[in-house]
Order: sequence, then structure tokens, then C-alpha cells
Amino acid sequence: MLVVMDAHATEDQVRAVCEKIESVGLRTHAIPGAQRTAIGITGNQGMVEIGLEDMPGVQEVIRVSKPYKLVSRDVKSENTVVAFPGTDTTIGGTDLAVIAGPCAVESRQQAFAAAEHVAKAGARFFRGGAYKPRTSPYAFQGLGEEGLRILAEIRERLGLLIVTEAVDYESLDLVERYADMIQIGARNMQNFSLLKRAGKARKPVLLKRGMSATLEEFLMAAEYVMSEGNYQLVLCERGVRTFADHTRNTLDLSIVPAVHRLSHLPILVDPSHGTGKRDKVIPLSRAAIAVGADGLIVEVHPDPDRALSDGPQSIYPEQFEELMSEMRQIAPIVKRTVPQPVAVAATNIR
Amino acid sequence: MLVVMDAHATEDQVRAVCEKIESVGLRTHAIPGAQRTAIGITGNQGMVEIGLEDMPGVQEVIRVSKPYKLVSRDVKSENTVVAFPGTDTTIGGTDLAVIAGPCAVESRQQAFAAAEHVAKAGARFFRGGAYKPRTSPYAFQGLGEEGLRILAEIRERLGLLIVTEAVDYESLDLVERYADMIQIGARNMQNFSLLKRAGKARKPVLLKRGMSATLEEFLMAAEYVMSEGNYQLVLCERGVRTFADHTRNTLDLSIVPAVHRLSHLPILVDPSHGTGKRDKVIPLSRAAIAVGADGLIVEVHPDPDRALSDGPQSIYPEQFEELMSEMRQIAPIVKRTVPQPVAVAATNIR
Amino acid sequence: MLVVMDAHATEDQVRAVCEKIESVGLRTHAIPGAQRTAIGITGNQGMVEIGLEDMPGVQEVIRVSKPYKLVSRDVKSENTVVAFPGTDTTIGGTDLAVIAGPCAVESRQQAFAAAEHVAKAGARFFRGGAYKPRTSPYAFQGLGEEGLRILAEIRERLGLLIVTEAVDYESLDLVERYADMIQIGARNMQNFSLLKRAGKARKPVLLKRGMSATLEEFLMAAEYVMSEGNYQLVLCERGVRTFADHTRNTLDLSIVPAVHRLSHLPILVDPSHGTGKRDKVIPLSRAAIAVGADGLIVEVHPDPDRALSDGPQSIYPEQFEELMSEMRQIAPIVKRTVPQPVAVAATNIR
Amino acid sequence: MLVVMDAHATEDQVRAVCEKIESVGLRTHAIPGAQRTAIGITGNQGMVEIGLEDMPGVQEVIRVSKPYKLVSRDVKSENTVVAFPGTDTTIGGTDLAVIAGPCAVESRQQAFAAAEHVAKAGARFFRGGAYKPRTSPYAFQGLGEEGLRILAEIRERLGLLIVTEAVDYESLDLVERYADMIQIGARNMQNFSLLKRAGKARKPVLLKRGMSATLEEFLMAAEYVMSEGNYQLVLCERGVRTFADHTRNTLDLSIVPAVHRLSHLPILVDPSHGTGKRDKVIPLSRAAIAVGADGLIVEVHPDPDRALSDGPQSIYPEQFEELMSEMRQIAPIVKRTVPQPVAVAATNIR
Repeated sequence: MLVVMDAHATEDQVRAVCEKIESVGLRTHAIPGAQRTAIGITGNQGMVEIGLEDMPGVQEVIRVSKPYKLVSRDVKSENTVVAFPGTDTTIGGTDLAVIAGPCAVESRQQAFAAAEHVAKAGARFFRGGAYKPRTSPYAFQGLGEEGLRILAEIRERLGLLIVTEAVDYESLDLVERYADMIQIGARNMQNFSLLKRAGKARKPVLLKRGMSATLEEFLMAAEYVMSEGNYQLVLCERGVRTFADHTRNTLDLSIVPAVHRLSHLPILVDPSHGTGKRDKVIPLSRAAIAVGADGLIVEVHPDPDRALSDGPQSIYPEQFEELMSEMRQIAPIVKRTVPQPVAVAATNIR
Repeated sequence: MLVVMDAHATEDQVRAVCEKIESVGLRTHAIPGAQRTAIGITGNQGMVEIGLEDMPGVQEVIRVSKPYKLVSRDVKSENTVVAFPGTDTTIGGTDLAVIAGPCAVESRQQAFAAAEHVAKAGARFFRGGAYKPRTSPYAFQGLGEEGLRILAEIRERLGLLIVTEAVDYESLDLVERYADMIQIGARNMQNFSLLKRAGKARKPVLLKRGMSATLEEFLMAAEYVMSEGNYQLVLCERGVRTFADHTRNTLDLSIVPAVHRLSHLPILVDPSHGTGKRDKVIPLSRAAIAVGADGLIVEVHPDPDRALSDGPQSIYPEQFEELMSEMRQIAPIVKRTVPQPVAVAATNIR
Repeated sequence: MLVVMDAHATEDQVRAVCEKIESVGLRTHAIPGAQRTAIGITGNQGMVEIGLEDMPGVQEVIRVSKPYKLVSRDVKSENTVVAFPGTDTTIGGTDLAVIAGPCAVESRQQAFAAAEHVAKAGARFFRGGAYKPRTSPYAFQGLGEEGLRILAEIRERLGLLIVTEAVDYESLDLVERYADMIQIGARNMQNFSLLKRAGKARKPVLLKRGMSATLEEFLMAAEYVMSEGNYQLVLCERGVRTFADHTRNTLDLSIVPAVHRLSHLPILVDPSHGTGKRDKVIPLSRAAIAVGADGLIVEVHPDPDRALSDGPQSIYPEQFEELMSEMRQIAPIVKRTVPQPVAVAATNIR
Repeated sequence: MLVVMDAHATEDQVRAVCEKIESVGLRTHAIPGAQRTAIGITGNQGMVEIGLEDMPGVQEVIRVSKPYKLVSRDVKSENTVVAFPGTDTTIGGTDLAVIAGPCAVESRQQAFAAAEHVAKAGARFFRGGAYKPRTSPYAFQGLGEEGLRILAEIRERLGLLIVTEAVDYESLDLVERYADMIQIGARNMQNFSLLKRAGKARKPVLLKRGMSATLEEFLMAAEYVMSEGNYQLVLCERGVRTFADHTRNTLDLSIVPAVHRLSHLPILVDPSHGTGKRDKVIPLSRAAIAVGADGLIVEVHPDPDRALSDGPQSIYPEQFEELMSEMRQIAPIVKRTVPQPVAVAATNIR
């Protein structure tokens, strides 16, 4: 259920409506829009009859038929723009977002080498896993908190915003502390406990689509995060599992306009996991921008052939520059901009 | 790497080999077989040269090329038979296992009604979710610990073994305490933190195949559990996601002989989630037994039309009796037996 | 649209209704049932109002909402039993049908060797491709008409009914002349021109499910055959394409009860293409019978390791005997019978 | 096997090599390149030892390990550019190709209305089905030869090149006569008889990817056409079948760079069938050009809401103009050009 307030409703009126709803045990989500405030209602609404229509300031009470509510454009028609305090960087606004870096933080040297490259080429976000969900228990599982400390140092010295994955409560606590954005990986898209925990975090969340998630399941996973109160949420398409074997996954770019139609949330594309092959990353990155994505998350490694994970899908630093350059050319066609690179002093960490 | 000991190797010799291996920082898994003991080695073995071949009692040192080790028949050629202390019930032995009950524990009355039915028809295991991973955050999420207490009471009064799902550390702690077998659901098949936690539990684990998991990924998930020391593990096929729309999932029965060929672990089939349709449950149950599965996990509800979850795929108690009867007929063809029902006193919990 | 006649309607009344329908440019399909005759109507029925309700002998006029009509149980509630003139062999009756033989007819010797084996073990139908749809233009494409002549000789000398594939008009003309049943392969399931031609043939048709066909598309393909007047039609599940890689295709046994619910047509299962692996053929054959299939089509080769095609999925003659023996045990559980083998004189064709 | 001739080999030398090869029963395919001629050899080459290495003009004899030969870049490293006699229009050159028009030719008026629109906006090719492969035998099956005559008239009066589908031998004969390019649809991608017939046609062929075809199967289907001597071949991605349900098919754009890497053949993208939804056609068209496709085939209908087939995925004429305009902007980024529209006189066919 959704309460749409009058354009001129006062804060007191909004508060009164929320209190009335909460008095019957439901939860409210006041979502201010450019024109008016909408109040999303969640909780088991069964047969409850509250009589909100006649309260002052209420324009309309809408029964939302879709299973997702807070992620829906019905509740909030304007695009969500996720902001990062202390910076002018956003995701979901006119600027395209670029998150780049290695699959995993392997060492301070490797991480800094990658970070300098991507910063110079214009990325504003740095990615790198400290906790790696690996198919095999015997494969490199990430540096853990040590990796997070390296990432935090990169933010300090290079001014990049840090995006890194959390895989359980413990790592989420740490990621929330050290990083700027909490990534929930594809394998955890329906780890509902983790989603709820992310919904209580005070940092933005990047939620990747599960390997065989439908659009509705993807939006419902986002709803889990939002229903706990975290509205700073960005989605990410990273390829789905099909019979096709010429790429590691099949990148489903059609979900970008599909998400934009139903939801106000931004959506990025991950052409690295989406294809699993270095030579497909640039063409699919161009396609992702052209289809209307709000940005990219790309694996860049200073020395992919010696990467501890995902080497074959990581691009070289020079390729990343080429990618940024092509992105700058396509951006205006979809009415987007690409921020200029910030000057980066060499750190000489070798 | 795998060390196969002589048939006549002494316990001291086995211990000495293990200590030698552990002295270089690796982990040992001594797996006693009918003929001889094998010692699985896990950990980053890189270029380590230990010189085990010449130790007393060692017959052979084998490099295992498959990514999974402990789950493999290379390490243990005999079938794993999971036992339940204090009972003669097993999974993976000659007896077929039947786990039956409602999707979720909804109330004491509903759970007891279901339990009496399935016990009478011959099931030895009762299932019922206390923690439900639901696509929507607004759907019934289970009764939590209250549900576990009802399940424990069912064990006390009806003698059924309890199988129920854990979805995070907290619920796993509780399930381990109250239940006889810890279920890890399909959505968590690659929740590696949860798998590791289950690997430390002292109760057997039932691991369901993920919605788009390959055979190798499924076995690797099992390897996560075993690599932490819990060898009491049972797999479960529950249907995979495909384009086909006449069933909720596509039940992939061919994975049963495929698992049996590569692994010593038992595998059950879940025809309820595997089809999502009541009228398909009995035919596919027959097929699952005929293909060689070690048993079934089936949703039975005393009143499916009023079930809070999965009603359309839950069968009626009478259908469950029919299913058990047909199972008894097919069992001898695949050289299996079905245990007789134990006399159950009516509990009169209404 | 479907006209259900009274139980006592006369032939003249049926004919009058048909003529009335045909007078407005539509096509009639009179389908006699045990209780009464139904008349299926096909053609563009748009807004036509014929006024059939009041004609003598008409019990009911039903608007069929499903896109398939003639294949539907709405039109014919009794199971279709396909008969083979001059024999007591049927498909779809109480007897389970077994079609066995090599992927391709490679030579007179090979075909006869296979045929003697399968006849002795109790198969009533012999399969063997004379026209092979191969992925590569450079692979063995079959012996063509020479292969058909060998198959016809096998019928003469061994009394087996011949099932073989047609791939275009020309081969269909020849298969119709030489064989007892015309197979349409998975790759041609939506070759609508070929389906229409098969619909005009005077021999029964075996229609295999396409690699990614939904149930509805499968039934619509059958409808193409029936709409041209050939009601002697048998369906066949042969595995669908999914991400799973432990078998060549994923055998979807749930389609068997799904077809039986919606359609009166029999459905066989092909565990050879359905799995692509010899060691999976027997377990999945058991499962197919247990799930309720009307029979099997299995690849048996006297020397699979030297087969020109599909060697790895062809079973040895001894395995086929084992399969028949297990089938005999399961049949009574699903209320079916397996005909006894007919005495076969050795042909000494070497 | 592949024979690479010297850069300066004479025509006589090429001919001599071909004759030598044909003398042992094999087939030759002389493929002139910018630098040198290569001679592809097809047929059952088994253990044949011909001794070609020492013939005059032969530079190298290469054993081709891939199952496809003639479609491979090993045989021909330069891109194939398909030309249309009497015009400067090509597919596979610098110019992007645009094939546009309704799903089916419904009437002379409808076809001309669509054709005038697409010609004005700059398409050089007109599409429209005269033979429609429809899932239901009762759905509109196309106007047949009458439709082809309308298409031929459109070529005469508007100068558009005609692309239309053939579904069997008979329709292929007619399409070859009336049209400029013969389309083989997705459902017939493995109708090998039809592919061979298309391989003997003297008109270029547009081959659509099957609904669940792997890259290798797609290239092998193309090999069927080329092995019969027709080298004027263009591929087309049109979406594959997956579990995803927010679009009718899942458009797999990654196959475009994958084809370009392995094959010299051009590849178009069909965003209409690829998505099945009008509002996804323009975004995915942009993405297709950005990913590197050689052009588009798009459904445009003057009045989609009244289309006899595929209405929901057909775009309006105004949307097609917008699509062309965005395409013109993206083309230079991928180093392609879009030909200017030719002046079209109104035909006043209403």
C-alpha cells in the first residue's frame, strides 16, 4: 500500500499519517519526491482498514499490486541518485559511474598499481575483493581485513571511492567500516539474512543479479535491502547462466531498460563477469553504455596473466584507457557525461 | 593429494603420516574404509614435497586431479552411510530414506497433524521450515525458534527425526541444537560462510543443489562442508531453472547416477520443489526411486489449500500413503528396502 | 471450436454437422470416442456464427480456449492407441512400446546384428537412421534409400516394425513407403512444412520434442500434423538444452505426466539422446517407465566403440537385455505390460 | 584441409591444384583473398594422401582442426562483404546495413506504407514475410507468392532490396526468383536439407541463429550453406531461449565479437525478435551497433496495433526514424558509416 501526499502537505501531516500507520503495527517508508512525498507501507497488511484517505494532506491511497513496492516507480517516479558524502560523485545521475580494479586485492603493491592506473584513466571508484566467494574451498579466499586496510589506504592517497564485497555478517561489519559501498555478490543475491543486514548499513549497497534470477526476483532482493531502511541502492547486471558456451555467462543487456522502466534504482553492468573473456569486455562495455546503463564495473589488473583469480577476464590498463575513451564518445548519445580524471600523484608503492 | 594406507597399517602409522603432513601446515582428513584407510590432504599444497611414499604403512600417494577431493570416490570408494544416533535409521544404506512434512511449521496443530500422517505412512524423518527463505520480504518468514521447539516436541512424541533449514549463523546454531539434520537450501548452496559453519556442526547436513548449479559446483559446495570436518553429508536434487514452464523447475534426475559415479555421498530427490505441482509429485517420486536415489524429501500438508507457503506443490496425506506404497513396490527393483512404519500413538493435539 | 455430439447421434447427423461447418469454409475433424463423437473445427473462425447448437444430434458446442485443439483431451478424452496393421503391436495401450537399434544404419551386417539382438530381447520396433541430420556437413549423413531397403529387409526377416527419420519431403516419401513409422527429429520439430507433409502421410508419426521447445510449442507441433488429418501420432521426450553439463541434454521426465494430462497422445522417452552417456541410459530408462511413459526409444549398437555416430550413448546388447528385464519388473507398478519376445531365427548375415 | 597458394600463383596453378584434389573425389572451394588464394577442401578426407605440398604455386597445406572450415578466418582472413548487383549497397563493408519492414506482408497497402517509411528514413533493405513459420497451424501463414509479388513491386518502385524468408524448397525457389536475399529463420537453422538448397541458390543468404544454438552449431549451419558453394552469407543474432521472462528471448550480443573473431562472415542483430518488446528495440539497437554488429534487421509496422503478427515487438515509423538517427551517431565510434536515405517518390498506394 502506498499513500501519496498532496504537493502542499506539511511535514506534520506526513508525520501524522506515518504515526497512524505505525499504530496498527505496520512500517512506514516516507519517500520525498520532487513534487510530493509518498509513504510506502510494509508489513502484513492483510485485512487492515486504517482509514487514511480522509486524513489531512493525503491525496490518494494506492494498493500496489506488484510484489515489490519500495523499489518501484509507483512509489518514487524520479530516478534514485546515490551520493557519496564529501565528494561530487554520484551513481544514477547524469554522470556515468565507473568502478574498476582487480578481482581480488592480492597485495599492497598490486592494488596500488591497479588503482593508480584506473584513477589516471578517470575511474572514480576502485573495486577489489578482500573476501572472495570461490567455488573451491582450496582456492585463494582473499586477504580479509588486511585487504580492507589496503583499500582504505588507496582511498586516502588516491581519492578513489572503495567498493568491495561482503559475504557474511562479520565481513559486512568490516566492509561497512572501511569501504564506501558494500557489494553483495551474485551468489548471495538470495541470502536474505545478508540482504537484511545490508539494509541496516549506513553505506550504499551494490547488489549484483543472481546467476539465474528473474527480473522480479532481482527487484525483490533489492526490496529486502530497502525494506530495512537503506535506500542507497544500486543494481548490477553481470550475466546469467545459459546453455551458451562462447562466454562464461550470457550478458543480458535488455534488463537495463527493463529495470529503468519498473524501478527508480540505478543499474550498472559488469562486462567482466558478464563475458569472462578479455577480448569481449570493451565491445560489451560500449554496448552497456549504449543500452542506457548508469555505469560499469570492470576488472582491470596490472598483470592479468599472474592474477590469483579471474585473470582471463581482467583487462590490461591500456585497454581500460581505451574503454574510457570510447565511453566518453558514446555518453552524449545517451545524454550522459563522464567525469574528467582527477590528477593523481604517483605513490611509488612497489 | 591422497595417501592410501596399507590394509594392515596400524593406527600409529596413520597418526604418524597425519602428523608429518600437518607439520608442513596442511590439513588431514583420515577416512577409514572397509579395506583400508585413506588420508585426504587439503590446504595450499603448491610445490610441497613431503616424502610420504617411504613412510611405514603407506601404500600409495595419489595426486587428485579433480577439484573436489573429500567428496570423491577416489578418496573413499564405499558409499557414505549417514547414521542417526539412538536409532537404526540411516541415509545412504539399503533402506530408502523418506523425509516428509509441510513446507513451513505454521502452528503446533498443523505440524502435529502433518507429522502423525507421515509417521503413520512410514516416514522416519519429518521436515518443516522454521526459517523460510522467501522471495518477498513481506511473505511469511517462519516461526523461528518457536517452530524449532514444536519440531523438537514432535521428535519426542512421535519418534521422527527432524530435518529443518538454517539460513544464517544464528539459525544454524539453533537448528543444530534442536534438530537431527541441518538443511542448507538451494539459495544458499554457494553461501560459503554458511557451508563452512555447517562443516563445523556436529549434526548431519542435507545440502540442496542450487537453482543453476553444475554438478561440479554442487560437489564443490559439499567439499566446503567436508573440508571443515563434517563428513555426515547428504546431497539433494530439487530441480534446476530452465526455459521450460510446465513445471516450476526442471527436475534433473540424471544427476543421481552422475553423483553416485563420482562421489560416495548419498543423494535424495525433492519432487515437490522439483516440479512445483501436486499432480506431478507421485510420478516423479516413482522415477526418482527408479533412477537410484537414496530417498525422497516431500512436502505433505494436512490442508494444502490453506498452506502459508508452497500449497500448490504439497500433497495430501492420502497421496503420501499412495506414494509410500508405490515406493515399496519399486524399491526391490533397485535393491533397496523401505522400513516399516512404527506404531504411532495419536497425540490428539488439535 | 468443438462440437460434442449426443451419445446416440447417428452417422447422418454427424455428417450433416460437418457439411454445415465446411459450407462456411472451415475444416472438420470427426473424432469418434468410446462414448460419443466429437468434431474438431479448424480454420480461421473469426466471427463466424454458424448456429450449430440447434442441429439434431448436437449435445454441446465448446469454444476451446487452448491454442491446440485436436491434440487436446477436451476433444478426445480417451488415450490414443496407435495400431500397426497386421500386428498386435500398439503404442499407447497397456503394452509398453520399445523401439531399439543403432543411431544409423551403417551396413547390412551391422543393422542385422543389432536387429537380432533387440528382437531377441523383446523389442517390437527397430530404429536406425537412413537420413541423419548431422551438425557438420562433413559427417556421415546416412545411407539414404539403401539404408531404407536394409530396414525393410529386417522387417521381412525378423518381423520388427521399422521406425526411421525423415528430414525433408523427398526422404519422407521414401520413409513412408519403406517404414512403419515416420520419425520427425528434434531439429525439425518446428519445420512446419515437413510437419504438414507428415500430416498427409498414411503411416504413424513419431514426433520428437525440440531442444528448447516448451510444452505448448510441442503440442502445437503435434497439432500441425493432426490438422492435416494424420491422427496416428506419438510424442517423444529426448532431453532439452540447459546449462547442465554432466549430460548432453537434460531429460525432462516431468513432461510425461504433463502431456498425459493435457493430451490424449502417447509419449515415449529417449534416454539415449536424453543423456548422451551410456552409463545413464539404464537408470533413466527405469525412471521413464516409472514416471508413466508409454515406452522407450533406445540406441543399441552391436559394437558402440566403432559406431559412425552416437557411439558414446549407445548401449551394448547385453545392457539392452538388462534394461528389458528391469522394465518388465517396473511395468506392473504403473499398470503396464511388456510383450514377450517373439522367437527369432538367426539370419546369419555377417 | 586448406591449401594456401603463393601470392603470385597463377590461375593455371590454382586450377591444377583443384583438379588434383577433385581427382580423388574431394570437393574444392577456391577463395580468392586480397593477398592470395586459399583452396578449401571438403569431403571425407580420411587417410587420403594427395601430395599437394610440392605442386607449383602451393605455399602451404594446413590441416584445419576446427569442425567448420569455409566459414573460418583460417581460410579467409579478410571480412566477407556481400554485394548486391546493380547497387552500391553491401553488407559487411564499412556501411552498416539496415533491413526494416513488417513481420509479414499483409496487403499491398500495408507493405507499401511500411516501405515508404523505412526508405525515407534511410533503410536500403525491406523485410516482410510472405511465408510465416507460425507456432499454430491456425495462425496467419503469410500471403505466399502474392506476397512475393508485392515485395518485388516495392523493389521496382522504391529501389529497396528485398529480404524475405523461405521455409521449404518450394518457397525457396520462389524467394530466390523474387527477392534479393533469402532468409533462413531460426526454427530452420538446423533444417540441413533447406540449408543445402540455400547453398545452391544464386542469391545471398541471411541465416538466423537457432533458439538454442551454440556458436559452433551456428557456424556449422553456415558451413552447410557454404559447402554447397554459396559464399554470399550473412549471420544474424535474434535472441536465445533462457529462463529470463522480462523479454521474449535473451539477446546475446556477445556473439557478435565472438563471430567476428572466428569467422569472416558479417553478422546482423535482430532486436525485434531479440526482445519481443517495442520499448526495448531502440536501446538494444544502439547496443548492437556499439558492440560491433554489421547492421540491424528491425520490424517496423505502419500500424503495429493491428498487425497480423508480432505487433507488440514492431516499432512505429517515427521510432524507426529515431533509431536511424541514433545509429548515425554511434556509427563513427565503431568506424562505420550509415548511407544517406535515397529520395523516394510517394507511391500513393492506399
